Parts: sequence; structure tokens; C-alpha cells
Amino acid sequence: MASITLSARSLTALLGEWKSAAPVYRGLADRIRLLVLDGRIPVGTRLPAERELADRLALSRTTVTAAYRELRDAGYLRSTRGSGSVTLLPGSPTALAAVPQGGFLDFSKAAVPPCPEVIDAAVAAAAELPRYMHDWDYDLVGMPGLRQAIADRYTARGLPTDADEIMITVGAQHAIALIARTMLSRGDRVLVEMPSYPHAYEALRGAGARLGAATVSSETGWDPREIEQWFARTSPALAYLMPDFHNPTGASMPLDTRERVARAAERHGTVLVIDETTAELNIDRPESYPPFVATATAACGRSAAASIITIGSVGKTVWGGLRIGWIRADRGIIRKLVSTRSMGDLGTPILDQLTVAELMPVMDGIVERRGRQLGATRDRLVDLLHDRLPEWSVPRVNGGIATWVNLGEAASSQLALAARSHGLVIVAGPRFGIDGAFERYLRIPISYPWGDTERAVDLLAAAWGSASFGAVPTSAYLDDVV
Amino acid sequence: MASITLSARSLTALLGEWKSAAPVYRGLADRIRLLVLDGRIPVGTRLPAERELADRLALSRTTVTAAYRELRDAGYLRSTRGSGSVTLLPGSPTALAAVPQGGFLDFSKAAVPPCPEVIDAAVAAAAELPRYMHDWDYDLVGMPGLRQAIADRYTARGLPTDADEIMITVGAQHAIALIARTMLSRGDRVLVEMPSYPHAYEALRGAGARLGAATVSSETGWDPREIEQWFARTSPALAYLMPDFHNPTGASMPLDTRERVARAAERHGTVLVIDETTAELNIDRPESYPPFVATATAACGRSAAASIITIGSVGKTVWGGLRIGWIRADRGIIRKLVSTRSMGDLGTPILDQLTVAELMPVMDGIVERRGRQLGATRDRLVDLLHDRLPEWSVPRVNGGIATWVNLGEAASSQLALAARSHGLVIVAGPRFGIDGAFERYLRIPISYPWGDTERAVDLLAAAWGSASFGAVPTSAYLDDVV
Repeated sequence: MASITLSARSLTALLGEWKSAAPVYRGLADRIRLLVLDGRIPVGTRLPAERELADRLALSRTTVTAAYRELRDAGYLRSTRGSGSVTLLPGSPTALAAVPQGGFLDFSKAAVPPCPEVIDAAVAAAAELPRYMHDWDYDLVGMPGLRQAIADRYTARGLPTDADEIMITVGAQHAIALIARTMLSRGDRVLVEMPSYPHAYEALRGAGARLGAATVSSETGWDPREIEQWFARTSPALAYLMPDFHNPTGASMPLDTRERVARAAERHGTVLVIDETTAELNIDRPESYPPFVATATAACGRSAAASIITIGSVGKTVWGGLRIGWIRADRGIIRKLVSTRSMGDLGTPILDQLTVAELMPVMDGIVERRGRQLGATRDRLVDLLHDRLPEWSVPRVNGGIATWVNLGEAASSQLALAARSHGLVIVAGPRFGIDGAFERYLRIPISYPWGDTERAVDLLAAAWGSASFGAVPTSAYLDDVV
Repeated sequence: MASITLSARSLTALLGEWKSAAPVYRGLADRIRLLVLDGRIPVGTRLPAERELADRLALSRTTVTAAYRELRDAGYLRSTRGSGSVTLLPGSPTALAAVPQGGFLDFSKAAVPPCPEVIDAAVAAAAELPRYMHDWDYDLVGMPGLRQAIADRYTARGLPTDADEIMITVGAQHAIALIARTMLSRGDRVLVEMPSYPHAYEALRGAGARLGAATVSSETGWDPREIEQWFARTSPALAYLMPDFHNPTGASMPLDTRERVARAAERHGTVLVIDETTAELNIDRPESYPPFVATATAACGRSAAASIITIGSVGKTVWGGLRIGWIRADRGIIRKLVSTRSMGDLGTPILDQLTVAELMPVMDGIVERRGRQLGATRDRLVDLLHDRLPEWSVPRVNGGIATWVNLGEAASSQLALAARSHGLVIVAGPRFGIDGAFERYLRIPISYPWGDTERAVDLLAAAWGSASFGAVPTSAYLDDVV
């Protein structure tokens, strides 16, 4: 089985400020466990040899041995003679899926509850099936009716679009991975935002990209000069951006920054990938923006806009269980994507496509109601967090699926670990970065039903109170022995 | 946009024996067009410079220029100053999907017509949706009911299986690609069969595999000594095999060969990936085999069988438009696959899973009826081809989705091209190999309705009669000028 080996240096970088009030071997085991749980250390990774890690961390070998033993006993590590210690996830594989297990409340995903219209649409789709099933099976590009309906919505939002500029995918992540695989060569430079959607980092890296990151903050958004400098310095092959209700910060990019990004991409021949999965989740943003490509076309002309690829999905508006996303792009790019797709899968399910086609005529109403739901949860969440955890700084986002909370101290990983032992699965801030930053941040979804959200805050407050956080200077533990 | 550049040497290898009675420039353009159409030259590939190709083929530069011009005019090539000539597909991207267009009959896929039970199952699934949709959305591993039902079928077929040894995927190709990405490192050696399912080659190569191939023939099947030699020589990280009703030959692997393969894999630490997508499509095979893993367990014991991964799907039994496949593997491997999956997609659609769960209780009947349909088509096809194209040698397969016809001359690419101009899309033999072999072979599906199959034979016969085949010695054209 192919295993990646993590060097002591890389593991040390991932560990960040891991020391706590617990015994050192346990603090080390806890932090490695968290890194495995939230995917920063992939399952099947070979950890550095004990002696090597002990040297790098300036700990005694017995401390590292004890930490590895603890991980082994808890089912996170398997050690075999000759092939070292390889990470595992204990228990059933379903622990990784969205199943609340044994009372676990899963806030790791920012999923939305299904909109009720899905039921009737699925029934209607099943009834429609006999009309389509003899002509459609392995559908790499998407059914014409659905592609036309999606194109029409872009046109109505100010971006004239034809059906053959649309390709249907198995959700937005599938779209990102397909684009990455098709448009990138190994070693290509790619500009991303930081923080950003972690699975996008994975897909881009999986295609061999070398990532560079421009900062996004809840308060100040993007710095257009920083982005321009990244373009000038690296001439990236591709840039992946989320300009509307950015995940996880909720920020939206101002119009003039959009124009500057589009111009920079044009100048450097960069393919822009604009993820608009969350773009319609408006609560009360004062500005209204057309799709990014419309702005870019106005600023740079049609030919520059031809190398901008837009991703959309019904996952955050309708329901994530319908795996329907799409790509809007120049016909030439669509053709290229279709022709490389079969390397990874042979098409989008027909039944799901028919279901979404049924929903398209009522999509405006669904999106509007979703905005109201998100707004109501945001209001109550901001108030409740202010009340229960006043030391946290909670941005009042004006749309999107989450708020990016500043904890006031570098304790996100420890908090996530403590929360898990209280029954809440939530992703630590560093998962949204590429270099271990964001220990002061936590993404809290505003997309779940209020009852769940209230319970999540309870569990977070309990976790926050249950341990002492704050980084302990490394030197204090230099002499530790188990 | 990232483009692969094809060297003159590589293109020459792909061209094979391309000369025909047509003018040389046209023969060259026709062959390149076919290679683009059937995916052997990916869209977006940069062709060699004209002078370079002319030198390699010992043609005049004007001949190559004329061939490239012909391709450009037909929409298969875009030439831009500075970046050379890049392959395209003309017209709408839907030309690539399974849509019969302008009377095109598509025999490129060996798809099966949907079984009628799908309709009621989809209706029932839609009715079930409200029970599940609040607990399920991004489902990386699969719904318990469906996993249990699939596990139970393995158990009933002689291979005791638990639900947590099953993972649901978006069809079998998705499973192959996920396994390749998870289990392989770049540069790993992988053993495949030749001929084999071309998208499997693509998925394995996409993960960086270096392929070596063991021969399978319609008449003599596998040579166990050849396979053992491959194992001994390359100690492959993974081997991808289709031991039951192999695609495209229809051959099945005898029991003792299965045992020898399992033992060789155990000896060399090779992960075996057994694709059983077509394993239940029995027409009248005299032998009955349990799932491959059951044989391997009996031969090598449970621990060796733990590194065998089985792929299944409803695509060739029920309908390809339901994108449901699965992986059966050791729990540790399932966990690893689940944890790497989100790099490429976020789960299998719920509605399709519920639909297949509805079908599981009647699956035996569906499989049996499918076998009868395939048998009826096989019988009539063998007779018709014997009648219309007596010079072809048509194996009477005893199961599977296709027969692997020997044309008697190295003319498959030219036949496929001629067939296309008669309105039939069919894949030339070399697409099922990895080195341009199989010019004497053509895969003819037995999976389509008889009316379509009859029409396909008409078009093949017309195409076969419309051109003179047979390779022309290269030297005859050395002095050709357009």
C-alpha cells in the first residue's frame, strides 16, 4: 500500500503550538490525533521514527514513544516492524461520513437542511424517467433541459449564457477536481485564498499544483495589491477564488477588486476559477453583484473573460444530497473538460439531473428563503455567542454558510479536540489554511437548524471551559520525561 | 491552458499502418482525426511541428502541411503562431456524450437498455426520501441499507461480507479512479490486461502508474505463466484484472489461473483490483465461479485476500444512468479510500442509492433476464455477421457485453472511420490496447436492442465495402506530393 512518509520537520510544522497543561506525551498524542481526525495528516501516512521526532522536538525519546503508544492504543496508529507507524482512523468508516453517531453533532460540514421542494421534485423526476432513460445513460456533459435552465439563470442574472457553455458535474467538488486535473500540469503555480475551502486545496494539490495564497479576512476582505503582487511574482497557471460570501469568512469582493483581479489574470494568462457555490446565499449584503464573469467582461472584454471558469452547485441552496454541480466556461474549455472527464467517472446521474431540472423554475424562491433562514440563524448565533463566549469576536456576516470566529487566542485545535470529547465535531481553523495558520480562528456554520446550533454552542462553551488553552513556551517542557 | 506535446516519434507510433488508397495527406489527416475522435490523442494535445513530423514519416513537408490544413478546416486542429497546432473536437460538446445525433448510432459504449424495474424503484425512492434526507447529504461511504444489501449478495454468492467492507461510489469508473489515486504513488508499476477497458488505463495512468500488460484472447484467455512472469519481473504495486466475462474479449479465467494469480499477488505484495462489473452477465458459461476473493481466500488464506479489492456496479445489469458502483475491500482499505475521496468528490447521490436499494431484492431476476437478452442478441449477431461479413471471425462469447471480432486484416481504425461517415460510432480495436496493437480487432457490443444491432451491422458492412483496406507499404508513397 502506498504510504506518504511525513518527515519530522513537516510534522513539527503541522503540530504548531501544541503544548498544553497536560503531560507532554499526551499533549503530543492529542495534537497528532486531531491532525488525523480533521485530515491534515491523511490516513495511511507514515509518521517519522520516534528518535527522529524526539530530536526535532527536543524531547526525550521515551516521551515520543509514550505518545505513539497512546495513539496506537486509541486506534490512530498501526506500527509494524520494518514499515514504521502509519496513521489510521479507529472504528467504523462511517465515522467519516455525515452520520451523527452516538450523539455526535457534526458541525464539520456547513451543510444545509434539504429544502422541502426536493420531495415533489424527486417524485416528478421519477415520473419523467421513462421519457429520458432510453436515450441517456453515461452522461458526461449534462442533459440539455437542465443545462438550458442553468444558462437561462445566468442570463437573467446579467451574464448572457448558452446551454453549451454549461457542463453538469457530480457536485461542486467534482467540478473543482475535474478542472484541476484538466487545466493543470504537475508543478504549476496556483493562487488560492487563505483561508479557503480545504477540499479545493486538496483537489488542486492532487493535480500537482504548487499553491500560493492571498489573505482574506472577515473584516477587510481581500487586498488587491497583494493579489496583484502574487500574479506578478508567480504568473500562476490558475487562480481559485470565491468572491461572493467567501467560505469560511463570509466576505464579498468589492467591484473594483474584481476588476483588478480580472485584469491581472488577463495580463498573466491565468485561468480564473470562480467558485460561486455560495454566491446566492445573500442575507442582507448592501451591494448586489452580477456573476463575476459579467464584471470581468465589462472590464477586460469578452476574449479575456473566455478564460474564466465559473463553478455552481445546488448543494448549499437546495440540498447536498443531490449531487449536482456545474461548470460555466467557454465552449472550448467545456469540450476539453468533457474529454478528460472519463478518466475519473462516466457521468452525472440522470435522476438527480431531472430532479434539479424540476426545481429550476422555483429556484429564486428557494434561494430567497434560504437567505432568510441563514439570516435568522446568524442573528441568534451572534447574540448567543456574545452572551456565552464574550471573549470571542464573531463577525456579523451578510451572507454565506458560516462565520469565521476569532477566539482571541491560538487555541482552535485544542478547542476542536475538546469539543469532540464533548460530542461536537467541528473543524479547527488551521484546516482552512495551507501552512498551519488560523489557530485563533474557528468556522461556525450558520446553516444548521437552530436547535442544533444552540446545542453546538453549549458544547463549544463546555469545551472552552474544560481545558486551559494558550500556548505554553516550548522551553518549559524541554526536560519532560513521562 | 496546459497542453501535452506529442513528439513526432510518439505520433508515428500512434499512427500505426495508416496509409490507404487515398492521397497521402488525406490518409494522414484521416488517421489523426480518428485518433482524436476515439481519445487516443487527447483533446488539447499539441501535435509535432510539420517539419519534424515530415522528417520522421519521410514525407514532404507540403504533405504534412496539407494534412494539418485539412484537420484545421474540419475543426480538429487549432494552429496559433508560437504555440503550434493543438487538437480540438469540432461542434457541440454533446457530440461526446451518449446522444444519438443527426442519426448517429452510438456503439462506442456497450451500454445496456434500462431494466423496466428502474421506474418503480425510482418512484419508491422518491417516496422514501423524506425518511432519509435529514440525516444524509454528503455521503462518502454509502447508506447502511444499501451497503448491507450488497454485502448480503456477496455472502449469498459464497463470499461472506459485512456492510463495513462495502463502500458506495458514483459508478465503477469512479471506483477505479479512486482506488488508483489512493493506492498508487507516481511511477508505480501496474499490471493490466490487454486488451482491456480503456478508461481503466486512463485512470491508472492518471494516478502516475507505469503499465505493463498481460495478454487476453477470446480463444485462449490468459496465460498464467505470462502473468507470473510479469509479477516476478516487475513486482507490481497493483494489478487490475477482469476475470469474468472480460471486456472486450468475453473470456473468463479458469479456476486454477485465478489461484495462481492470487498466489503471485501474495508473493509480490501486489494489491489486486478485480473488476466484477460484468461478472454476473452470464449467458451459458458452463463453469460457475464464486467471486474472485472467495477463490483467493481458499487458495491463500484470509490475510492474503485482505489486499484484494473488488469493484461492482449496476451499470451493466440495471442501467448506466444510475451512477451506482461499489468497492468491496478490507476495512482498513475502505477507511483509507473514504478518507482520500473528498479530494475528488463529496459523495454518492442519495436518490440513486435509495433507488438501487429498492432494486436489490429483485436483483437476481434482473441479472437472469439480462443474461437471456444478451444471449438472444449474441445468437442473432453471430449469425448475421457470419452471413454479411463471412471473412470476419466472431467469437461466440458465453457472457459479458461484447464480442471481440477478428477482422482478418489490420483495418480496425480505417473501418471505424468509415463507419462514422456512414453514421455509426464505434471504437477501433487499438483503443483497447496500450501500444497501438489490435488493428485486426473490433469490439461489437451485444448489449443493445436487436433493431439497433441489426442497423449497426448494416452500417459496418457498408463501411467495410466502401473502402479498400490493407496496409500499403510505406515506400510506395515516399515520393508523394500533394
